[in-house]
Amino acid sequence: MDDSINYLLRGVQQEDRIALSRAITLVESKHPSHQKQAEELLEAILPKTGNSFRLGITGVPGVGKSTFIDAFGSYLTALGKKVAVLSIDPSSTRTKGSILGDKTRMERLSRNPSAFVRPSPSANQLGGVAQKTRESILLCEAAGYDVVIVETVGVGQSETAVHDMVDFFLLLMLSGGGDELQGIKRGIMEMADMILINKVDGENMKAGARAKKEYKRAVHLFPENEKGWNIPVETVSSTESRGLSTCWNHMTVYLEKVQGNGYLEKSRSEQTLAWFREALRQKLEQDFYEKYGANGEINRIIDAIRNGSLSIRSAISNLLKE
Amino acid sequence: MDDSINYLLRGVQQEDRIALSRAITLVESKHPSHQKQAEELLEAILPKTGNSFRLGITGVPGVGKSTFIDAFGSYLTALGKKVAVLSIDPSSTRTKGSILGDKTRMERLSRNPSAFVRPSPSANQLGGVAQKTRESILLCEAAGYDVVIVETVGVGQSETAVHDMVDFFLLLMLSGGGDELQGIKRGIMEMADMILINKVDGENMKAGARAKKEYKRAVHLFPENEKGWNIPVETVSSTESRGLSTCWNHMTVYLEKVQGNGYLEKSRSEQTLAWFREALRQKLEQDFYEKYGANGEINRIIDAIRNGSLSIRSAISNLLKE
Repeated sequence: MDDSINYLLRGVQQEDRIALSRAITLVESKHPSHQKQAEELLEAILPKTGNSFRLGITGVPGVGKSTFIDAFGSYLTALGKKVAVLSIDPSSTRTKGSILGDKTRMERLSRNPSAFVRPSPSANQLGGVAQKTRESILLCEAAGYDVVIVETVGVGQSETAVHDMVDFFLLLMLSGGGDELQGIKRGIMEMADMILINKVDGENMKAGARAKKEYKRAVHLFPENEKGWNIPVETVSSTESRGLSTCWNHMTVYLEKVQGNGYLEKSRSEQTLAWFREALRQKLEQDFYEKYGANGEINRIIDAIRNGSLSIRSAISNLLKE
Repeated sequence: MDDSINYLLRGVQQEDRIALSRAITLVESKHPSHQKQAEELLEAILPKTGNSFRLGITGVPGVGKSTFIDAFGSYLTALGKKVAVLSIDPSSTRTKGSILGDKTRMERLSRNPSAFVRPSPSANQLGGVAQKTRESILLCEAAGYDVVIVETVGVGQSETAVHDMVDFFLLLMLSGGGDELQGIKRGIMEMADMILINKVDGENMKAGARAKKEYKRAVHLFPENEKGWNIPVETVSSTESRGLSTCWNHMTVYLEKVQGNGYLEKSRSEQTLAWFREALRQKLEQDFYEKYGANGEINRIIDAIRNGSLSIRSAISNLLKE
């Protein structure tokens, strides 16, 4: 292990935020020499990982994810917790996420010494982003963070990716007003471990209470989940910091339950395995293109496929015969 | 090419539904010898493909997809079109799709000599299902079908898969009543080439008109799409067969437009390329597991990953070093 990695490793273990930030940058880098270093670093911190509560947060744009995380994260630090915030942004080509930087988005939390707010990784393939985010979770854990929040940014396919890397998946919703547009797929609702109706303050109090009732009824109709957990539905005001303790209470009850019945361990083990398979898939593909992309073979085949003179099956069986 | 493939090829080209059905079964088979035959068959029909209008249809369970396809397909056959209906069912482990067979679900169309209704493929990995469905589209085209409808069954990630294999993506919605639950992600709405509010009949007429207005307003706010197509919003009654001609009119206008401006050709070429990349990815993974799965190497590595003694990055670089 070279000196610079040793330095990063010590820094992360000493809970130094700048070292943590640089470690995440290293893990995100695509440069081959950085990748080798990242591998060493990740292997070295492995024994120090796994001790955080991994919390995923999703919701449509405008639901107030950043404001909620700012308030909830500050609440947790006041309880003595160290809180890290990562975000995952597949940067869908169809719809862009927030154009504001994360620092601006979570003002209180960014200035909090017990918190670490990491700006979104730049545009990339979803799979790749998810891998880096998983590794960033591990780095935050090695740096002693008690709660690692992973937020979905933008609209896209990131909900499933986040769900598959966290212990608890929180869905933020709004009450009333243009429900067709705030629509979240039922599949996403069924993934949630808690539904939180945000912005229930001021003129929204009545609509919030009504929405809570409706979602409770809806949730009641969901098929039973394997963890035997009844999905709580609560209202919250992020701007007035109301409802945050109720929210955290549900999470601690959940955590005790899944730690007690072995579900947490089982679930994390399955997540890790799926992560391995995905990473392997990406590496195999990358190696293949590096090997065959150089001599133009693939481009010739792609041209033949495009002009309709070669079927996909034949193309692949020809390519892999060699 | 052996006799049985020759027989299937002739059958498909003579527009024989039984041969078409058997050809699709061959394509879906995972048996190695069948895969070789399927490759030959697909290569042989390639010049006869590409001449259908590929129509994807999605919407939440209960929106009436089958009833709509039954009505719309029957309308198209009355215009002299040959209509094929395929469905894609990733069989999400979280939520199951319809438990009724497709034959029962589309009663009129199934008995129609100008129509071909193919039951859903059995549970499988989504990627695999999507590949087979793409190949089934080609077979239907070789068998002379003018419109090939691909329907999403169940809830899951299949919308994007279907969107990426069709020329026109139709989203069915309901008017009023529990909009939070019928919620479709905004990203899906933005993928749609037309939004159709179904079940606008009887007591639903007023709510349907209101929903139409709301969706029109919503659609108006979407970012402009690259094809320069304004997404129509219409109401339809599948049980009363009302609104079907308006729906078809929009599609023919669309088709003329994208054929004229080159978008259709470009889009299909991109779809084919993405399909090739996905198929290659799957094949690489499959070959890898076949090669290393046998000697238990992978299982040893998986155990080490699971008990936290090996990082994913190290696991993969060790595996691929050999």
